[in-house]
Amino acid sequence: MDYSQIKAFLAGPLEEVSALLEASLKSDIALLDATNLSLLSQGGKRIRPCLTLLAAGACGGVVADSVRFAAASELIHNATLLHDDVVDGAATRRGKPTVMALLSSPASVLIGDFWLVKAIRCLLEADRYSERAIRLFAKTLSDLAEGEMLQLQKASACDTTREDYIRIIYSKTASLFEASVLSGALSADAPEEWTAALAGYARNLGIAFQIQDDILDYAGGADLGKPVGIDLREQKITLPLLCALDSVPEEAASAVRAKVGRISDEPELAADVQRFVREHDGVDKARAEMGNYIDEAVFCLEELPQTEEKSYLANLARFVGDRTF
Amino acid sequence: MDYSQIKAFLAGPLEEVSALLEASLKSDIALLDATNLSLLSQGGKRIRPCLTLLAAGACGGVVADSVRFAAASELIHNATLLHDDVVDGAATRRGKPTVMALLSSPASVLIGDFWLVKAIRCLLEADRYSERAIRLFAKTLSDLAEGEMLQLQKASACDTTREDYIRIIYSKTASLFEASVLSGALSADAPEEWTAALAGYARNLGIAFQIQDDILDYAGGADLGKPVGIDLREQKITLPLLCALDSVPEEAASAVRAKVGRISDEPELAADVQRFVREHDGVDKARAEMGNYIDEAVFCLEELPQTEEKSYLANLARFVGDRTF
Repeated sequence: MDYSQIKAFLAGPLEEVSALLEASLKSDIALLDATNLSLLSQGGKRIRPCLTLLAAGACGGVVADSVRFAAASELIHNATLLHDDVVDGAATRRGKPTVMALLSSPASVLIGDFWLVKAIRCLLEADRYSERAIRLFAKTLSDLAEGEMLQLQKASACDTTREDYIRIIYSKTASLFEASVLSGALSADAPEEWTAALAGYARNLGIAFQIQDDILDYAGGADLGKPVGIDLREQKITLPLLCALDSVPEEAASAVRAKVGRISDEPELAADVQRFVREHDGVDKARAEMGNYIDEAVFCLEELPQTEEKSYLANLARFVGDRTF
Repeated sequence: MDYSQIKAFLAGPLEEVSALLEASLKSDIALLDATNLSLLSQGGKRIRPCLTLLAAGACGGVVADSVRFAAASELIHNATLLHDDVVDGAATRRGKPTVMALLSSPASVLIGDFWLVKAIRCLLEADRYSERAIRLFAKTLSDLAEGEMLQLQKASACDTTREDYIRIIYSKTASLFEASVLSGALSADAPEEWTAALAGYARNLGIAFQIQDDILDYAGGADLGKPVGIDLREQKITLPLLCALDSVPEEAASAVRAKVGRISDEPELAADVQRFVREHDGVDKARAEMGNYIDEAVFCLEELPQTEEKSYLANLARFVGDRTF
């Protein structure tokens, strides 16, 4: 079983999500409309709508509101990518040129704002629980901004601790995973204990997902169209480096951190730090920790009744470790 | 009477708005918190919260929700300024360095997102009509993004018509003025006809306000800390130029438009276009048109009962023509 099977299982509702995305983003401003259609055609993994739909299915069944919440979750994800591209100065995303590279960084900000507001509109259109859904996603948006700001702050001081790191990646990635499943559970009127189980699942899955992203920044993954070494170039201290730092005496660790702090002035120092991570098995240790989060995610699902959706959620968690999708 | 008298009249509720802004933006991320406090301390005119509070007062009285909606309107305004600074590459705003200049354009995007989501939280906290208020401001946010994208599109083709121009400035400025008064009216349970009158007032006022902004870009206004000639440098065709273009034969107008289209490559051409605007009294003609919008704004208020707030709204409209505040 692979990720395409989950998408096949959800083909019907995912089709509805796609139709809703397209309808929501329609604009009579030609430049905006063309850009939206081009972004939509790039597709992407659609992992967040899948989470919403699987959570709804696991709690009783997908309804029209599940589709609306799934679409909102994908809109918010893409809005944050559009804003992230400005934050990261990214020229490519999913192996394709970004809006920033094609148009300009202003356009990327504005189009991100547009997608964000269309997400709110989707939530407002819900038959029930509009306000609670808006509350869920508003928390995520606040987390996202705080997480990115904490990351900027830590990157300039090079004093990221493990606690900071987990907060940053929870805020950047896991919080939206959590809102995605919670909105699905909400649409299906899930009881409290299933909702809590799904939240635990999503938090652990999201953290594992982001750790894998950070591992790929060291270990590479050309098929993802993602360049390597970006984090370090921006002085971001992620789990592979934290694991390596934990395995040496404090003084040596401080020296490496000081080196990271000089990378923006002396980019050639990045190679030294990468060697340090390799020598102390940073990537393997990070991979092991990621495995723990995945196990925990699957464990959280035990609270849920046995359904096909529950199996897919468990499989989805196991795929995250491989991320060939 | 001047603008400070309106602020004095509203001192109590404006104080509550300020307190709510500060509480809403509180964050334990030091970099974010410090930036928020510094932005708040710059103050600004607070014209949008004044509109919300005056509209509520004119329709029966300011309640706790009026303050929440007023704060949301100020948060959204500042969020869009933060995003605009990235769009415009602005280094100063209100005569002070922008977040972009102090931190980075990424930070400006993220902090803008943070303010935006805090606006949504303020609306969610309302005792009544949360959803309707969110709907009002969501429309504005969508207008804002569409308006800016239309402006980008038109700036590259240099084919802005009067109709485009009015749509752009409605979307950029008047739409939020409209949402500000409408949310105030909503908080006071205003009857339909008062609400419609206030919407008409705000649309006309917002358009006049933006025309005045565009006039200042030609005529200068050093005390506003606003540099001159920015619009033209970005190939934006605004009312003073449109008025001048209307006063010459079509062929001559096309030649000037073509010249505008080359400004990003040959910045020295801007001086030619400025001279053209002067020679054809573009600024005076634009000022006369702005006067019509202000008259119309004041006329819309006739539907409202005679209150102190109504007089302040009328005075506010008349101040816009001078904009020494």
